[in-house]
Amino acid sequence: MAFWYDETFEDRTRYGCKVSEVLFSERSAYQKVEVFDTVHYGRTLVLDGIFMTSEREEHFYHEMLVQPAMALVHEPGRVLIIGGGDGGTAREVLRHLVPHTVTLVEIDETVLRACREHLPTIGTCWDDPRLELIVGNGVSYVEHANAAYYDLVIIDGCDPVGPARGLFSVEFYRACERLLRPGGALALQAGSPILQHDQFIETIANLRQVFPRERVKPYFGPAPLYASDLWSWALASHELDWHAIIEDRAARVEPHTKYYNREIHRAAFALPNNLKRELGA
Amino acid sequence: MAFWYDETFEDRTRYGCKVSEVLFSERSAYQKVEVFDTVHYGRTLVLDGIFMTSEREEHFYHEMLVQPAMALVHEPGRVLIIGGGDGGTAREVLRHLVPHTVTLVEIDETVLRACREHLPTIGTCWDDPRLELIVGNGVSYVEHANAAYYDLVIIDGCDPVGPARGLFSVEFYRACERLLRPGGALALQAGSPILQHDQFIETIANLRQVFPRERVKPYFGPAPLYASDLWSWALASHELDWHAIIEDRAARVEPHTKYYNREIHRAAFALPNNLKRELGA
Repeated sequence: MAFWYDETFEDRTRYGCKVSEVLFSERSAYQKVEVFDTVHYGRTLVLDGIFMTSEREEHFYHEMLVQPAMALVHEPGRVLIIGGGDGGTAREVLRHLVPHTVTLVEIDETVLRACREHLPTIGTCWDDPRLELIVGNGVSYVEHANAAYYDLVIIDGCDPVGPARGLFSVEFYRACERLLRPGGALALQAGSPILQHDQFIETIANLRQVFPRERVKPYFGPAPLYASDLWSWALASHELDWHAIIEDRAARVEPHTKYYNREIHRAAFALPNNLKRELGA
Repeated sequence: MAFWYDETFEDRTRYGCKVSEVLFSERSAYQKVEVFDTVHYGRTLVLDGIFMTSEREEHFYHEMLVQPAMALVHEPGRVLIIGGGDGGTAREVLRHLVPHTVTLVEIDETVLRACREHLPTIGTCWDDPRLELIVGNGVSYVEHANAAYYDLVIIDGCDPVGPARGLFSVEFYRACERLLRPGGALALQAGSPILQHDQFIETIANLRQVFPRERVKPYFGPAPLYASDLWSWALASHELDWHAIIEDRAARVEPHTKYYNREIHRAAFALPNNLKRELGA
């Protein structure tokens, strides 16, 4: 009963996985939530027809969203994750000992339930006592949270369409910035700088309205499931130097990571030549 | 009359382009040669059902195959290209003034004809007097060429299946090494280190049988059309230091490149953590 499932990009390109079994399929208040067992990627989460994460390749995305920030923020004791309902981002944060509170705000209870039941190798930390799970709207949460409270805010949303659209606005970045303690940082995924080029440029421009221009740093790496050649994330802060890796902390996580290490960290900040021209130095 | 054309990977994943027009379709002595006009990538070369190169994204592959070597070899006066029938690799070499002879050995006359007619933005150098074009078998050419003649040998073949299989063997690498002058280097594409992981590891192992272990350097970058998240190339030599970029020469090419620059050069050699474990330092 295996079948091809394709994600189509604007009727221009498509990426397909051979699906061997449908493990979960429900329409939530926000989106269609599906978990497929696929031949190549293992179990795979699909939201509104978009491949989100899979057992085989999720480490690229989750390590790169989290580990660069964890190697730079001096004392990331309090971490806030907006989105991240598959649990992979929380797992990467909790590999470290220094966070004592990780607050995860996921809007869609159905995503949490599907992932907890079907993707246990991605979300391994649901029972960690340091994890505080909130089912709710991340935008509202950020608006109402205490100022200067978090050391690290991580935005782990979908692409800038659908329910996650608000997570890419200047207003939201400003609201996140308000939550940061001195020395804190914001980390986020910024989409494909090639396939979603215009949105990527806009995301960086929006961040530069809130943080000092030279402290907004996009960085790059692979994300196989997104079939878009190159993925991007960004870090923004008022103080951090992106080269000043806390060597001990990064060294302690390297035995556990599959993609990230200190050389990859430094390399990821190199700007492709055309983006360097467009973004300025 | 637009239709989807998919490249399938082992009945596991597939990558498709919406084709608006078939511009060329012939079966040569070696393979099926097609040029499609596609909505997303523009004109696209397909060999035996595998996407090879396209107007929109060919710069990633061609710049990364050529420019790192051109920034490292001291006097690349004589360059040999095995394969490369689309002309993109020759174009990248001929951006520089220092090569006085570029010999391109392509086995398939049909590929040359299709590309020359339909992909003029990729192969822009067919009439450059420095280019010597030979229609013939690259493996035989390398076996019979003069020893210690070339400053740079570039292997620009397909994946290690079909007519290009012989281009990934120890014997072929040994034959290429024989052609290198002192200070010369070999550059090649090494496939996807993720999707074609085992072949990638074997390619590096084969190169290490011919060149000193510490002088065989894989490097990485995006290659959108291959839908395989991360692509790899490798450089091998007896002498070169991969950090010792000839700054003037790289600086002169940067106004013309879309992906490559000196920061990208240095960054590309960072090894993903799992490959670092597998390959050793």
